[in-house]
Amino acid sequence: MHGRTQGAAVGDMTQRLLLALSLIASATAVPAVIRTVPDDPTAGSSGAADAADALFCDSWRLSVETANAGPWSAVPSRCGAFVRDYMEGPRYASDSAVADADALAFASEALAAAEWGGSASARPAWVFDVDETLLSNAPYYAVNGWGSQEFNETSFDEWVDAAKAPTLPSSLNLYNQLQGLGFHVILLTGRSEFQRNATELNLLFAGYNSWEKLILRQPYDIGKNAVQYKSERRAAMEAEGFKILGNSGDQWSDLIGSPMATRSFKLPNPMYFIS
Amino acid sequence: MHGRTQGAAVGDMTQRLLLALSLIASATAVPAVIRTVPDDPTAGSSGAADAADALFCDSWRLSVETANAGPWSAVPSRCGAFVRDYMEGPRYASDSAVADADALAFASEALAAAEWGGSASARPAWVFDVDETLLSNAPYYAVNGWGSQEFNETSFDEWVDAAKAPTLPSSLNLYNQLQGLGFHVILLTGRSEFQRNATELNLLFAGYNSWEKLILRQPYDIGKNAVQYKSERRAAMEAEGFKILGNSGDQWSDLIGSPMATRSFKLPNPMYFIS
Repeated sequence: MHGRTQGAAVGDMTQRLLLALSLIASATAVPAVIRTVPDDPTAGSSGAADAADALFCDSWRLSVETANAGPWSAVPSRCGAFVRDYMEGPRYASDSAVADADALAFASEALAAAEWGGSASARPAWVFDVDETLLSNAPYYAVNGWGSQEFNETSFDEWVDAAKAPTLPSSLNLYNQLQGLGFHVILLTGRSEFQRNATELNLLFAGYNSWEKLILRQPYDIGKNAVQYKSERRAAMEAEGFKILGNSGDQWSDLIGSPMATRSFKLPNPMYFIS
Repeated sequence: MHGRTQGAAVGDMTQRLLLALSLIASATAVPAVIRTVPDDPTAGSSGAADAADALFCDSWRLSVETANAGPWSAVPSRCGAFVRDYMEGPRYASDSAVADADALAFASEALAAAEWGGSASARPAWVFDVDETLLSNAPYYAVNGWGSQEFNETSFDEWVDAAKAPTLPSSLNLYNQLQGLGFHVILLTGRSEFQRNATELNLLFAGYNSWEKLILRQPYDIGKNAVQYKSERRAAMEAEGFKILGNSGDQWSDLIGSPMATRSFKLPNPMYFIS
């Protein structure tokens, strides 16, 4: 016996494929930007080296997305152009769309299932991170090295204040669909309380029209890593009577820790790591 | 404040890159096999459709590797050729090599760190799954549709009995390095006790020369899914005094559940899902 067990909740793959395709087709491209990642100076002189870089960088990206890589501080220097191409080309939008389609397929099944205990006392909730989950900071990273430069808090805060981060189209679609299904949408971000106004303005600018609550870091959260801060807030949500069925985030630190959502959905982010 | 916190354990990236490269270079190709996944009949007639499939299938594979996809029963029909090409080409070996390099980088640091409590009473252990972790069943799946056909227990058991599954070169390297570092290597497989002899023969054939113990499913494990079965066995290891620092497996069901290893490493597998 091979020990293989079919899961009971295999989704309707056809529906997912169609949805993912339609989302990819409707995804808007990242705005054209000044490129600050230099093209590989060896390009043209060594096709084999380019191919080796492409192969390695794709594997490095997978190791980031699966959390195999563990903590990391910068995109490997040989992968700067790879990350730029990934973010600017169709792959980032496609990967995001499939992740969001997975989330929606689960959400529909989960609401229908009795197992989550859909009693009057429990309110079904979905938690979203903000940066690289609802809003894209690609235009900022496009002029700041696509993750190959050290994080600059000053310039990033200026970008946040401008409140012009574009939407992530497949996330906006998921968001609206979840609200239509009756989910309470809770936003849980590593941004700080002093950025509440800019964040709300940006969310509205990006097409997110309403939310149950927007939770930002408070002064007493300083020094907590994201796992601790976000886990504490999820515990508080449960204490308030929310049943967190789903959680979408671009960092594993958005998703792990106790309590966890029934299902968590990792959105792609090859640009930076937050512990 | 952006809430970004640097992890304390950022590895030596340069070393990892070099190791990963050397492993990729030494990885042997999957043996040539009869192809049973038909080439896309529309190939040549529609380059746009091919490109859309390639884009989607790569995103589908990421959703599998991140567990976003949840339970799934077969490779999407449009992705059959994609999975074949992934497994036969350099990407599978590259992705495996980077995952194994991540594991080795962690292992070296973890043994050196005091935090795991390396007292005389705790023995550092590393758990490995067997199929698609130490041994490759690619030659079997090559003649059985690369995951696009329903699982056939009879023919798979015949393949197991033949004991000719080739090694996964980067896993063998990790395995030997871990033993050199002093780890107790424990093999925990979904294969059944009646397959012990064939499994041991195959492991020796593939270059794995010794192990602390090889744990297979017993009759009383029938009906347990992999998460339950493997979690119970990890708990037993800890009760015996092993400290499970690392766990390598190609399925999330090898890795999740309580207790978990300090760090878990997901090896790639786009061919099948085990709950």
